[in-house]
Amino acid sequence: MTDFAATKALFEIPDGVLYLDGNSLGPLPKAAPERVAKMLTQEWGELLITGWNKAGWMAMPMALGDRVGRLIGAEPGHVVLGDTLSIKVYQALAAALDMNPDRRVVLTDSGNFPSDLYMAEGLLRSLGRGHELRIVAPDEVAGAITDEIAILMLTEVDYGTGRLHDMATLTKRAHDAGVVTVWDLAHTAGAVPVDVAGAGADFAVGCTYKYLNGGPGAPAFIYVAPRHADRAVPALSGWLGHDAPFAFEKSYRPGTGVERMRVGTPPIIQMTALETALDIWDMADMADVRRASIGLCEVFIAEIEAACPMLTLASPRDAAHRGSQVSFRFADGYAAMQALIARGVIGDFRAPDIMRFGFTPLYIDEGDVRAAVAIIRDVMQNRLWDQAEYKARAAVT
Amino acid sequence: MTDFAATKALFEIPDGVLYLDGNSLGPLPKAAPERVAKMLTQEWGELLITGWNKAGWMAMPMALGDRVGRLIGAEPGHVVLGDTLSIKVYQALAAALDMNPDRRVVLTDSGNFPSDLYMAEGLLRSLGRGHELRIVAPDEVAGAITDEIAILMLTEVDYGTGRLHDMATLTKRAHDAGVVTVWDLAHTAGAVPVDVAGAGADFAVGCTYKYLNGGPGAPAFIYVAPRHADRAVPALSGWLGHDAPFAFEKSYRPGTGVERMRVGTPPIIQMTALETALDIWDMADMADVRRASIGLCEVFIAEIEAACPMLTLASPRDAAHRGSQVSFRFADGYAAMQALIARGVIGDFRAPDIMRFGFTPLYIDEGDVRAAVAIIRDVMQNRLWDQAEYKARAAVT
Repeated sequence: MTDFAATKALFEIPDGVLYLDGNSLGPLPKAAPERVAKMLTQEWGELLITGWNKAGWMAMPMALGDRVGRLIGAEPGHVVLGDTLSIKVYQALAAALDMNPDRRVVLTDSGNFPSDLYMAEGLLRSLGRGHELRIVAPDEVAGAITDEIAILMLTEVDYGTGRLHDMATLTKRAHDAGVVTVWDLAHTAGAVPVDVAGAGADFAVGCTYKYLNGGPGAPAFIYVAPRHADRAVPALSGWLGHDAPFAFEKSYRPGTGVERMRVGTPPIIQMTALETALDIWDMADMADVRRASIGLCEVFIAEIEAACPMLTLASPRDAAHRGSQVSFRFADGYAAMQALIARGVIGDFRAPDIMRFGFTPLYIDEGDVRAAVAIIRDVMQNRLWDQAEYKARAAVT
Repeated sequence: MTDFAATKALFEIPDGVLYLDGNSLGPLPKAAPERVAKMLTQEWGELLITGWNKAGWMAMPMALGDRVGRLIGAEPGHVVLGDTLSIKVYQALAAALDMNPDRRVVLTDSGNFPSDLYMAEGLLRSLGRGHELRIVAPDEVAGAITDEIAILMLTEVDYGTGRLHDMATLTKRAHDAGVVTVWDLAHTAGAVPVDVAGAGADFAVGCTYKYLNGGPGAPAFIYVAPRHADRAVPALSGWLGHDAPFAFEKSYRPGTGVERMRVGTPPIIQMTALETALDIWDMADMADVRRASIGLCEVFIAEIEAACPMLTLASPRDAAHRGSQVSFRFADGYAAMQALIARGVIGDFRAPDIMRFGFTPLYIDEGDVRAAVAIIRDVMQNRLWDQAEYKARAAVT
């Protein structure tokens, strides 16, 4: 059994803060500042360039990739870290398109994160081969998988509503129709048990700064199914994805397996911070995390619906179809979220009207949830959000 | 006048080390560990998600971009940081190709860094429009610029030999032939005065972990000339390059100017380390750096050639045609470099036979150069490299 009291003690949560935004940026592992300072002083400072070998920097993208891989059900050696999620989406989609050259439709849904859609748009436009990006409603995805579709590109959990797709069923349906799948796990890695190997996913990508607590700008990851790993063609063919990066050959030869999805020099300082978060994740079992997360979400939904009738549940009511977040619609949601943040309940707002709360058992327990509910009830029932100071729209909430 | 004794005091150089590899990975600014630990504790730890606004994280790619921009002669507001250099090469080349759609040749030279060639290969292959990547010898570049060429893509300073291209002349010649230019400044930013605006460069990219001392995996930068900035079409069209990233629109609309070249979430921890290096760069004038660098290189060449006839100068003898590094060819260069590193002289080796030494006046002075020469002389004259322990080839030196 995962000891959540023990994991909670390893995170820094400021006094007076109830942090329900770990789905956007996880909190600081207490070990990170010292570990990073030590890496800077003892590795970069002392070893200088030789740190790439002597401190194992060059191996970090694969070593940490395996630790993320355990959380998403990947076969060892088939996840690598690097770049940002948007870049990894591009890589996965480009390689997937290459595997289905005779079809012209990329199917996705309106619950996909906009950056995934933007990256697909940019790639398809660059290719100039008349590909269509077809966006359907989430519940129409299954019916839209036909033999016209080249790629099914979905984010498993909708960043807005928390709706959870059934990866295994949709992947099976896709494969039956000759469709290659690209799964974005941004809101599932560390939130919900994922089994990319069991589901037969072709490509999966995700970020490590949300539920995985890697810090602002932590690197992304990519999984390529073992059956594809040695034939996927990298569009972003950088030197560290070359079979012999330090031979400085004039022509690109892809490396073995998922390592070919490496591009440029990896961000070692970010990875060192992430490593301290993965040390905590090593203490956790995803089945326990899921069980605890559902418990927290159920309490939250029941209490908020009872106390705040002006809030409309935007997330699936059935926990089996929901990730680890709960969203409510409220027309003045931006102002309401600002009022909550001023009182220490940190969630976030997503346009046009979504108030979003993430539940992260690694450092949030039922006491936190009940304390947050009390503050939300007070703010909503007493219209404390209806003040000018909360109404101004800022770029980031 | 730049006070190089003052800048040198701000870097951590281990006792007994003569560091001539700042062209590969700059040393640690002494302020970095504390500054990064403070960012982790007081910003990530205390502000959590609100750090994106309250700590100014979201603005860092442009704010630091301007500080890098000063060193390369860019107009303020036209450099942005992010991703890796390989990704930035891809972005610049893709946008440049879009501006010259009727031509089919990308011209580069054999002195370009292999990853630039690899990224170009991958892009051109993806496009599938029959583009050719034409690689000529460095001294044949000028003559090869014809009206058949779409893009001239060069690294200003050859990573192997240190040969310096004349950016202004080649750019003028390119423009006269209707060619768009992409300059890689990896070995010039912080090494040699660059004037992208004065030279009329169209696109320029570079990294910040070499001469700029940003640390392992520090982010790259991209410059887009003001005349192109609002019409360059991003192939990597990520949400942070969107005109309204937090409106979560379903379709991509490029942002204003170079900000459209942002892609995903920026690496804030890496940028914080880089910021401490840029604090030191703010004390430096590139003309002073160049003058000092030439002085150090001239001493080094004269002393090594006098003492070590077995080493053949691979860099241009004329300082005007050389960056801030000096390379020598030696058949057993790998072993010799290992023997030097064992005695505290850290340079690096580049296949097949290049021993490379970087000169960085910010923290290397003439005393260091003469001390390094004494050790190199001893190692070479006494064949100290001719031992089994130095002969094994490792992946990274």
